[in-house]
Amino acid sequence: MKKISSFLSITLLSLLMISCGEDDTKTKQSKTGGAMASNAAERVYVAPGEHDEFYAFISGGYSGNLTVYGLPSGRMLKEIPVFSQFPTSGYGYSEETKPMLNTSFGFVPWGDSHHPDISQTNGETDGRWVFINENNTPRIARISLETFETEEIIEVPHSAGNHSSSFVTENTEYVVAGTRFSVPYPQEDVAIENMKGNFKGPLTFIAVDDEGHMKIDFQLKMPGFNYDLSHPGRGDSHGWFFFTTYNTEEAHTLQEVNASQNDKDFIAAVNWKKIQEYVANGGGEEIDAEYAHNVYDHETHTATSTMMNKVLTVDPRDVEGAVYFMPTPKSPHGCDVDPSGEYIVGNGKLSTDLTVHSFSKMLKAIENKEFDGEAYGIPILNFESTLAGTVKEGGLGPLHTEFDGQGNAYTTFFISSEVVKWKLGTWEVLDRQPSYYSVGHLMIPGGNSRKPEGKYLISMNKITKDRYLPTGPELEHSAQLYDISGDKMELLLDFPTHGEPHYAAGISADKVKANSRKIYRLDENKHEYAALSEDDTKMVRNGNEVHIYMTTVRSHFSPDNLEGIKVGDKVYFHVTNLEQDFDVPHGFAMIGANTSELLIMPGQTKTVTWEPKKEGVWPFYCTDFCSALHQEMQGYVRVSGKNSNVPLKWTLDGE
Amino acid sequence: MKKISSFLSITLLSLLMISCGEDDTKTKQSKTGGAMASNAAERVYVAPGEHDEFYAFISGGYSGNLTVYGLPSGRMLKEIPVFSQFPTSGYGYSEETKPMLNTSFGFVPWGDSHHPDISQTNGETDGRWVFINENNTPRIARISLETFETEEIIEVPHSAGNHSSSFVTENTEYVVAGTRFSVPYPQEDVAIENMKGNFKGPLTFIAVDDEGHMKIDFQLKMPGFNYDLSHPGRGDSHGWFFFTTYNTEEAHTLQEVNASQNDKDFIAAVNWKKIQEYVANGGGEEIDAEYAHNVYDHETHTATSTMMNKVLTVDPRDVEGAVYFMPTPKSPHGCDVDPSGEYIVGNGKLSTDLTVHSFSKMLKAIENKEFDGEAYGIPILNFESTLAGTVKEGGLGPLHTEFDGQGNAYTTFFISSEVVKWKLGTWEVLDRQPSYYSVGHLMIPGGNSRKPEGKYLISMNKITKDRYLPTGPELEHSAQLYDISGDKMELLLDFPTHGEPHYAAGISADKVKANSRKIYRLDENKHEYAALSEDDTKMVRNGNEVHIYMTTVRSHFSPDNLEGIKVGDKVYFHVTNLEQDFDVPHGFAMIGANTSELLIMPGQTKTVTWEPKKEGVWPFYCTDFCSALHQEMQGYVRVSGKNSNVPLKWTLDGE
Repeated sequence: MKKISSFLSITLLSLLMISCGEDDTKTKQSKTGGAMASNAAERVYVAPGEHDEFYAFISGGYSGNLTVYGLPSGRMLKEIPVFSQFPTSGYGYSEETKPMLNTSFGFVPWGDSHHPDISQTNGETDGRWVFINENNTPRIARISLETFETEEIIEVPHSAGNHSSSFVTENTEYVVAGTRFSVPYPQEDVAIENMKGNFKGPLTFIAVDDEGHMKIDFQLKMPGFNYDLSHPGRGDSHGWFFFTTYNTEEAHTLQEVNASQNDKDFIAAVNWKKIQEYVANGGGEEIDAEYAHNVYDHETHTATSTMMNKVLTVDPRDVEGAVYFMPTPKSPHGCDVDPSGEYIVGNGKLSTDLTVHSFSKMLKAIENKEFDGEAYGIPILNFESTLAGTVKEGGLGPLHTEFDGQGNAYTTFFISSEVVKWKLGTWEVLDRQPSYYSVGHLMIPGGNSRKPEGKYLISMNKITKDRYLPTGPELEHSAQLYDISGDKMELLLDFPTHGEPHYAAGISADKVKANSRKIYRLDENKHEYAALSEDDTKMVRNGNEVHIYMTTVRSHFSPDNLEGIKVGDKVYFHVTNLEQDFDVPHGFAMIGANTSELLIMPGQTKTVTWEPKKEGVWPFYCTDFCSALHQEMQGYVRVSGKNSNVPLKWTLDGE
Repeated sequence: MKKISSFLSITLLSLLMISCGEDDTKTKQSKTGGAMASNAAERVYVAPGEHDEFYAFISGGYSGNLTVYGLPSGRMLKEIPVFSQFPTSGYGYSEETKPMLNTSFGFVPWGDSHHPDISQTNGETDGRWVFINENNTPRIARISLETFETEEIIEVPHSAGNHSSSFVTENTEYVVAGTRFSVPYPQEDVAIENMKGNFKGPLTFIAVDDEGHMKIDFQLKMPGFNYDLSHPGRGDSHGWFFFTTYNTEEAHTLQEVNASQNDKDFIAAVNWKKIQEYVANGGGEEIDAEYAHNVYDHETHTATSTMMNKVLTVDPRDVEGAVYFMPTPKSPHGCDVDPSGEYIVGNGKLSTDLTVHSFSKMLKAIENKEFDGEAYGIPILNFESTLAGTVKEGGLGPLHTEFDGQGNAYTTFFISSEVVKWKLGTWEVLDRQPSYYSVGHLMIPGGNSRKPEGKYLISMNKITKDRYLPTGPELEHSAQLYDISGDKMELLLDFPTHGEPHYAAGISADKVKANSRKIYRLDENKHEYAALSEDDTKMVRNGNEVHIYMTTVRSHFSPDNLEGIKVGDKVYFHVTNLEQDFDVPHGFAMIGANTSELLIMPGQTKTVTWEPKKEGVWPFYCTDFCSALHQEMQGYVRVSGKNSNVPLKWTLDGE
């Protein structure tokens, strides 16, 4: 067997090594406060009773969730379950939420969340929703910033590794999803070695309506490259979308070597307005596509999953002037567009400098047909013709760039482990700060918009090692908070992040907090099995199914003693929380249940099933400490044998 | 139907109301910094590169997990999965860890973790293990502080609501588990209204050996009260264990009213040394008891679950002088023993003062037979005879007490929402601080030991409301950090907690950090399906099962192209992480898998299954950003039709 090292150039190998070890110098520098801001403690401290200035929505990566942090304190305010089961609240276990995790592959209890993006109006973040993509079993979710709950998940058919997602256009016309791994389109059983020229990389444009509901408008059948990241145009470039590609070699094995051969890959520039017009006029082809569309309704408190079966596919070669390739060194990762929409940054992760394209030059080059050939029928623009500039001595391994709205850009360099500030237009490096360690992504609130709120920057680092008290082999990842309001970046704080943050989106608190919902109104509860008062509670048998219509209020369940249930029954506990005050959830847990508890917000109804296996008297109780008499908030279920004739019987209010 | 309010006395109702609303005065007081410490910001700030001074292990409550925080920063350093599935790492989804969640009721994917306690040697926390109880489906877990992983879970048979748990004796001879809800013992199908006098409340003493392995030594068949919390004796009272009880009324319905009738309930004092001797001499009765005992092995990286079938039961009336009841007002919750072992605090949650018993007075009262009757054959000691003192004007609704080792105690009052400092012996109140809002538990590092490390106190509050930026109806709970090194408590910080913390245990970092493991050694890996080098990788078919022996190392999988898999197969990916450097995990995810990803630490092997449903070419990839070429770390599986004859074929290193 050939050894892998023989494939790798010395340079590449040495680049890779840099990120692997602890760097004593750096650690000392930080420990002695060399790069530290003055009064950092006071500048990140949010006193008891005070609020943070910004929300940061940070992807949980392999947790499948979205985490909410406050800035500048770095405190995690919430973890919102999105693509994974979440035992804490019963998400993905309760009958109402299980449909949220349905896919064309069946129930998928886990996801890999990647890139949150906040909805926009006129190119500014508007605080209505956060979108986030699932990389593994391709999906896009929409989270409400009124309820901080996942309201909708749409599967992306024909995609594999839904990575160059989920970024929104400047009026949230579309949320866009691009495939990372190319696959047969549509899927078929072919030898893997036939990949080159045969696999495709679809880019999917999902329309978002005024209520936030998502619908696939069209899917662009692109060549079989890997589409890594993307960002929308804005301002003059609104109407375009830009995607980085790698593995333009179309290698199917040992990609760390075989997909790193080309000196340049591409940024794909997609004129989506042109394609939108094309499909509005009947263009494109409707083809078979199996994918789930799951919607959670806040009146029925229930999700429904619908299996879709068609998608409109567009061959980019059929739409004149819709798609171009801009050559970009080398295996570019982040694809970032500045607030003006003029500059498109290709973060060539194996490159030692940073390539910036000009949108206006691109338009001219297209007009003048300054092409360097084509790839699968798509014109390749001449590199020099679109090049705005190059940031030299930026660092090694650029991954992502954000903007402060003051004409500056900030780029993370994974291999040289630093954040570098540079000037748009002059491309000069203005400042650099080491990262601990191996920074991946970074975020400035409003970074993907026309109006970044450029006060803070967080870097999300991939290696943690000694940054916190040790916690065994598995560590949390680590973020660093910088104040970027001055000429130089000032490091303020290290804080751990939950899961693996692949990206983040931030927004000033004022844009969100006024609309945050406190309760669900009981008089709006349309759940099929709700009991809206204790008078509505009951037990109903239907064959071996028993439905319990139950209520909770401080500090008792109604009913609280249940008899007539038998081994072999399937018992549905439908629990309605009658509270109408803020922050009075109740929980429900049943001993030995082969599912989770329920955490039920005021006004909500949730359902959990229980299949009793043993005769006896078994307790249930409230899992959320709700009052001084919380410990008394319990009940019993009597379970009789399969053939018993104990009738259904229940106790209300001790009678 | 009678209305509940008619049951409640005006007093009780008004007490309950106090905890429900936001108190403007309090909020203002805090917001203006009235109760704030000076330089609080600097005192909680841990600069980048520096470490926290203490570990705080905080129960996740209904998350089923244990969270690890640093103090004084309040940063969450890790969430350790214990009783619930954890999509982040694949705990409870991977083949190796699924047995950890096995019970006599089958696979239970969720738990309600409550009271962590750190192992002790000579009455001091020793930093070897953390124990924690599961309340719903009664279990005790042991977490290693070398690996920060759950190593063992034992089910507690005959128990229901395993709440007065998991506290350890001063040399970790026992970890103790008491039932909260009384049930038929053993379980049988009886009418619930027959509870009184017939149900039992077993207290279980689980022996812990030098390796930490747990074994039920005996189970004490106590009267059918609710056993709420417990703590061991220490010093002179070592050999005794104390349990609070409530619902001595033995009410089975509407307990918020019916279990709050008695003016006094009991603290049960159990002389476990006497019972230990009794069973060592053949005492007790072996009875049927079905319960799971699950152990994770760090060499095979695999858990095994064994179903046990017997337990030794002891009737307390059969052991002369082993158990006494101390009357204690009123529905006491926390049962706390001071560092000297002399004082036993009964936190009567519906009481307006706090009752403290004296161990030495208790011994004298026993000697003098100062009894006030008996309950089910167990002597009730005269209240005045054991009373050491009463803390008057402490507050309303005392729940928990901790100690600073300087002769002071700190009690949380849920209803009056405050933490009160008072003096042991004189019972005078020294200081009080309001809580935001409705404090439940509190923790001082080493609080359950002979040597509390009384520098910080955290209060864990049950209601959050406006303390942080709003996040919809569902909020994280909130903790507050106090400096208690001076005469007065100084509030330093508010920080959110993850899940619902029901208790916490703290320890100085120095006692843990030196032993924290960084990697698993590959040469010690004895996993049945490990591939310890790329030369060992292969595919093996066995009927419709296909086993993939796979390795990961920066930045490729071996094999990375797999063919010959068919729809209807059950594919086992056994993935070994060949890395031997600290903090280089790899992940593994397969599109459409109806389970989770794997997160694999250096030297580990983990297994996930996949049942392909559709023909085609499907990717897998590394989920943890591991190097500059992480995005290239992927592979493909070709799935053919059920009846295809594509042979097994795999690609190593691009060949």
